[in-house]
Amino acid sequence: MPANLFNDIFANYDKRIRPIDDQSQPVTLKVSYYLNSINELNAITETLTTSGYLILQWKDSGLAWNPSDYNNITRTYIPQDDVWKPDFVLQNGKAKIKELGGDFYYVSVSHNGLVTWYPYEVFTTKCSIDMTYYPYDVQSCDMKFTVWSYRAEDVNVSSKTAFRLTYFERSHIWDVKSTNAQVSVYDGGYVIVLYRLVLQRKPAFFILNILFPIALISFIMNIVFIIPTVSGSKIGFSVTIFLTFAVFLTVVSSQLPTNSENTAIISTYIVVEISFSVLMLLVSALSSKTAAPWGRKDS
Amino acid sequence: MPANLFNDIFANYDKRIRPIDDQSQPVTLKVSYYLNSINELNAITETLTTSGYLILQWKDSGLAWNPSDYNNITRTYIPQDDVWKPDFVLQNGKAKIKELGGDFYYVSVSHNGLVTWYPYEVFTTKCSIDMTYYPYDVQSCDMKFTVWSYRAEDVNVSSKTAFRLTYFERSHIWDVKSTNAQVSVYDGGYVIVLYRLVLQRKPAFFILNILFPIALISFIMNIVFIIPTVSGSKIGFSVTIFLTFAVFLTVVSSQLPTNSENTAIISTYIVVEISFSVLMLLVSALSSKTAAPWGRKDS
Amino acid sequence: MPANLFNDIFANYDKRIRPIDDQSQPVTLKVSYYLNSINELNAITETLTTSGYLILQWKDSGLAWNPSDYNNITRTYIPQDDVWKPDFVLQNGKAKIKELGGDFYYVSVSHNGLVTWYPYEVFTTKCSIDMTYYPYDVQSCDMKFTVWSYRAEDVNVSSKTAFRLTYFERSHIWDVKSTNAQVSVYDGGYVIVLYRLVLQRKPAFFILNILFPIALISFIMNIVFIIPTVSGSKIGFSVTIFLTFAVFLTVVSSQLPTNSENTAIISTYIVVEISFSVLMLLVSALSSKTAAPWGRKDS
Amino acid sequence: MPANLFNDIFANYDKRIRPIDDQSQPVTLKVSYYLNSINELNAITETLTTSGYLILQWKDSGLAWNPSDYNNITRTYIPQDDVWKPDFVLQNGKAKIKELGGDFYYVSVSHNGLVTWYPYEVFTTKCSIDMTYYPYDVQSCDMKFTVWSYRAEDVNVSSKTAFRLTYFERSHIWDVKSTNAQVSVYDGGYVIVLYRLVLQRKPAFFILNILFPIALISFIMNIVFIIPTVSGSKIGFSVTIFLTFAVFLTVVSSQLPTNSENTAIISTYIVVEISFSVLMLLVSALSSKTAAPWGRKDS
Amino acid sequence: MPANLFNDIFANYDKRIRPIDDQSQPVTLKVSYYLNSINELNAITETLTTSGYLILQWKDSGLAWNPSDYNNITRTYIPQDDVWKPDFVLQNGKAKIKELGGDFYYVSVSHNGLVTWYPYEVFTTKCSIDMTYYPYDVQSCDMKFTVWSYRAEDVNVSSKTAFRLTYFERSHIWDVKSTNAQVSVYDGGYVIVLYRLVLQRKPAFFILNILFPIALISFIMNIVFIIPTVSGSKIGFSVTIFLTFAVFLTVVSSQLPTNSENTAIISTYIVVEISFSVLMLLVSALSSKTAAPWGRKDS
Repeated sequence: MPANLFNDIFANYDKRIRPIDDQSQPVTLKVSYYLNSINELNAITETLTTSGYLILQWKDSGLAWNPSDYNNITRTYIPQDDVWKPDFVLQNGKAKIKELGGDFYYVSVSHNGLVTWYPYEVFTTKCSIDMTYYPYDVQSCDMKFTVWSYRAEDVNVSSKTAFRLTYFERSHIWDVKSTNAQVSVYDGGYVIVLYRLVLQRKPAFFILNILFPIALISFIMNIVFIIPTVSGSKIGFSVTIFLTFAVFLTVVSSQLPTNSENTAIISTYIVVEISFSVLMLLVSALSSKTAAPWGRKDS
Repeated sequence: MPANLFNDIFANYDKRIRPIDDQSQPVTLKVSYYLNSINELNAITETLTTSGYLILQWKDSGLAWNPSDYNNITRTYIPQDDVWKPDFVLQNGKAKIKELGGDFYYVSVSHNGLVTWYPYEVFTTKCSIDMTYYPYDVQSCDMKFTVWSYRAEDVNVSSKTAFRLTYFERSHIWDVKSTNAQVSVYDGGYVIVLYRLVLQRKPAFFILNILFPIALISFIMNIVFIIPTVSGSKIGFSVTIFLTFAVFLTVVSSQLPTNSENTAIISTYIVVEISFSVLMLLVSALSSKTAAPWGRKDS
Repeated sequence: MPANLFNDIFANYDKRIRPIDDQSQPVTLKVSYYLNSINELNAITETLTTSGYLILQWKDSGLAWNPSDYNNITRTYIPQDDVWKPDFVLQNGKAKIKELGGDFYYVSVSHNGLVTWYPYEVFTTKCSIDMTYYPYDVQSCDMKFTVWSYRAEDVNVSSKTAFRLTYFERSHIWDVKSTNAQVSVYDGGYVIVLYRLVLQRKPAFFILNILFPIALISFIMNIVFIIPTVSGSKIGFSVTIFLTFAVFLTVVSSQLPTNSENTAIISTYIVVEISFSVLMLLVSALSSKTAAPWGRKDS
Repeated sequence: MPANLFNDIFANYDKRIRPIDDQSQPVTLKVSYYLNSINELNAITETLTTSGYLILQWKDSGLAWNPSDYNNITRTYIPQDDVWKPDFVLQNGKAKIKELGGDFYYVSVSHNGLVTWYPYEVFTTKCSIDMTYYPYDVQSCDMKFTVWSYRAEDVNVSSKTAFRLTYFERSHIWDVKSTNAQVSVYDGGYVIVLYRLVLQRKPAFFILNILFPIALISFIMNIVFIIPTVSGSKIGFSVTIFLTFAVFLTVVSSQLPTNSENTAIISTYIVVEISFSVLMLLVSALSSKTAAPWGRKDS
Repeated sequence: MPANLFNDIFANYDKRIRPIDDQSQPVTLKVSYYLNSINELNAITETLTTSGYLILQWKDSGLAWNPSDYNNITRTYIPQDDVWKPDFVLQNGKAKIKELGGDFYYVSVSHNGLVTWYPYEVFTTKCSIDMTYYPYDVQSCDMKFTVWSYRAEDVNVSSKTAFRLTYFERSHIWDVKSTNAQVSVYDGGYVIVLYRLVLQRKPAFFILNILFPIALISFIMNIVFIIPTVSGSKIGFSVTIFLTFAVFLTVVSSQLPTNSENTAIISTYIVVEISFSVLMLLVSALSSKTAAPWGRKDS
């Protein structure tokens, strides 16, 4: 009878105690991350927001039972706050570290003491963005998890860690180029589980809305050489093109991170084009000086 | 006497135990969703925010009593945290999974043990937006719920699940075209309750404020052919039309998701019109070159 | 002695039990709402944010005492979480339902068991906005409260419910035209307490900053007929007026809800004016074609 | 020994009981507010955000001890949730009332039972803003505190309340002109502690970035009378000045509250200038009609 | 056996008692701050957001044990809420003071009673920004921590406090020029731990996107002197340059704090340039008056 089962289990259970009989041995943790969707990759704040769920598994002998004693029940569910859990957390998040799951979660417990916990989370991680080749950029973002308090000698992460896309919903903006999962033990015995996500931007939207308009303005700039100097429109035309570039620079640079190390090629291109438009203005003004019909009349 | 009733019920009640006598049988859950209002469908973040309440019903034999023993009381109310509840949650939300209801909620309990819980919630769900036919677009958004920890063999959802609009307040922006409710059991025994909402945008606002102004500019563009080449206004006029299109592209594309897979027809249309305005500029410049009265004077 | 009082009261008190001796009778709740200020009426999100406090009163015989037994004490204060409270909540809020008050609140209890609870709250309620006559619009917003779990047969709301402006701080934007409080019992026994607030916008700010500039542009448009066709400024002038209208349409429509059912008259007016400015452009171009001095020279 | 001290104190302590032997007498509370910094005074939302800490002191005879019995210890620290506290709260905040301090705070307790609590808080209070003389405006903002549940006969606030700037960090935007602290008892026995902060804006930034550019445009407007009517630039010039004013009106009014009662002088000034620029336009157009060289030629 | 260890330790442990045998002596706290990354330095709100973790160490004799009695276990982990902790908090934050860590954190405890706590935090601190030399500015930001309730005689901070960059991820925007850590005891016995971070902006991005465009416009302004007065474009050109400066002033000043004490040189420079452009306008207008070919013809 489960009521008995609960009472029997919790009679001698202390959730503060690391669940291993020989306390000099580490508890082994198996971690998998099932990516569900890429919510946002924000170039300005340099953050990646993903949602998905982790599967954490470990053995807690204090929660084991003999099925034959309890009506052949082989699995039960226990509120997550009633059992020992490792303080496995996202280390490179944008916010204060929070506990996984929540107090209404149940963990699944097998009769041999195997505990399975699958917290669904939305993670906002820091991600260093390189916009140099925007909108053809590839971004590599890491989600770093760690067992915050315990060391590898206390809680070890199994190398069978995995990063799965089984339930991944395709993004309209990013292609997942590759993924990687890796477990490392740092100096001092700290374990880091690193999930790497390499993303390639789908450029269609940006070509239509940013690259194409910029190409058009660059093209228009050449029209100035067709306009006859004497018509008087030449300088007005050049000033307007200059302003249009300035507006586009503002729009494009508001989408780029204020990053002084990797300058976006597109940003440099616009600045170069602005300089050319100034040159064009200068030439227009000079030619209007020399070629003005009034000037000739005066002479 | 209710005080006795409470004491009698809770004397042997453990809210951690799945409320069924034969623990090898599933608890059957009946779920209905009463949509109250559509708060927002955000095309940029691709989220749907709705409010409404769920009705969850299940039988908990541990909470049953004999009315004749207790002054013929047939229904009572118990704080939600004092009874067993399934961890029924929104699975495709934008935020971390949260428990339904709150600690101040009461569940209604009948003397036969039928528990009714109606948590009122505001759900923000992911919804893949297709703006191709904007502002004549139809969006299909799913709200996916699941019993997070338990499997179908533990907690099963009755197929009598319903999606009701009885208390729905009409939206000023969207018409509800159709709704659908569906229960499926996935591999591994996970139950998904899917509520689908198909929405059709009411286009009046967007016709007046976006389509009509764009049509006007397209029309104006043709005026350039009326303006006499020699007047000198032709090029200035063409440049201004070009800029106006650029401004409108910016306004319209700020309302569209940066979606590289389904390009909005309206967005393509504006880009095509911009290209035409550049062509127009080129023609204006060329004609001003050949037709300038000064040019003739020079010859 | 109060310590004795506390101990005596709580010796037999169970806050989960509805506080009435005859459990087949309803507890009667008296509710008043003292509006303090209108924080914001947001036309875009269609929400009203107000702050104020509710006064809830009910009788809890379990909390009564005989003053002569306790040093003639006739009133005491008890933390709100230690007594039974109805789950009275805002039903049409923009957010998940939250409990009133907070765990640090005390309720005031009289020796006859009368409990008074005055939670101060900031409510954000949905309010359907009609901007047709903006900035001369009148908005009617409802705050709907309900006893969420209990039905009228369990917890009834007295019809002596009131909506008071005693402590109301005048708003710089809205005049309170009228208020109304009403208690209704719906099918199934659900009680709704409805507080209606009818607000009239003070138009001075909008006349100065929106209506007056629009009137000016409409007036300017007529200046085009004064400008001599031959001066060449006519078309440039018309294009600039067209752009100015487009900019104003953008500014004004960013302040209106994207509501396809009640179109603001001001929005329609601007679109009509834009159409006129296009007509004007067409006339300017045509007249410049026929009246250009160069054209005459050519002939 | 402190362990004994704790045990002895809490053996008979009930934190729900008002800490005074004669329960018909009020507990006297001494309150001081140490302003730390002005975080923001937002004219649009009409809120003032300040940070600082309160010092609350009262006597709780239940927490007194005889130092000679406990190793001459004269002061100890107790977690704030373990003692009685008045529900002293900010009354005119923008958000729901929250408890001061937090569960990790300790209160300092002297052996005579004097309890000192210094919660550090960030307060966002409503403040009616008058922008008439912007950027030379003076704003007077009140922070109103109250003992929410208790009345003056239960918890009284000593008149020795103070508003101190000892630890105030100067603001770059506001000068503190004066401060005031005042305790009043309202009808029904409610005590209000009012801290008034009178702030004067430092105008340098706004002179450079708003007043000076507006003065420049006003000046430019007069240039139109210098431009010879026949040059054709006069109307173009006037239209451009008109647009520049419209842009500035937009920028300035986005910084002002939408307040229909106190119109900012600067806002009125811009509207008047716009009207003048329209008049100028009209004059330009009329003079161009009569003075056009072509016109003369025609005659 | 650890279970015994826990039971033995907590049999006589009261976490409310300052962990020192002689209660007249202070507990000594050792604090180190490991900066992880600079998330944002916001000039408008004058806040610095950093993430990193603190290491706090103190001795709690009540948690000591003899390893030989417990299977030679020398270190254990205890949930942070089960032990005494100093209320060490960030004092100059932008938000209400919050406790470090969280209830799911474990502290590491050595058999000699040494407690180590490493809470990972995201701190948003006030930082007075001086933009005078922007974008070549150097900012000095302080993070001030304090033991909120206890005084130096109760909890003292060791002078061996450190500010480490061992795990610092380089910022794309800021160079860390220097850091400093300092412990001071203020009047009244309050201990302040100050971590100073001196940051130098990397100017490359701002040179390309702000300084260079401004330099270009300044240069363009001189082109007006090349344009022949008679061409009629001179005034149009000058007005356009004037508007471009006004737009740039708006863009640049939206990035600067509204600080009336330290005016940014770049802001003053733009205002000076605007004044020059007005002067230029005036000169253009005057010269057009005197030099207009029509004028000559008239004479």
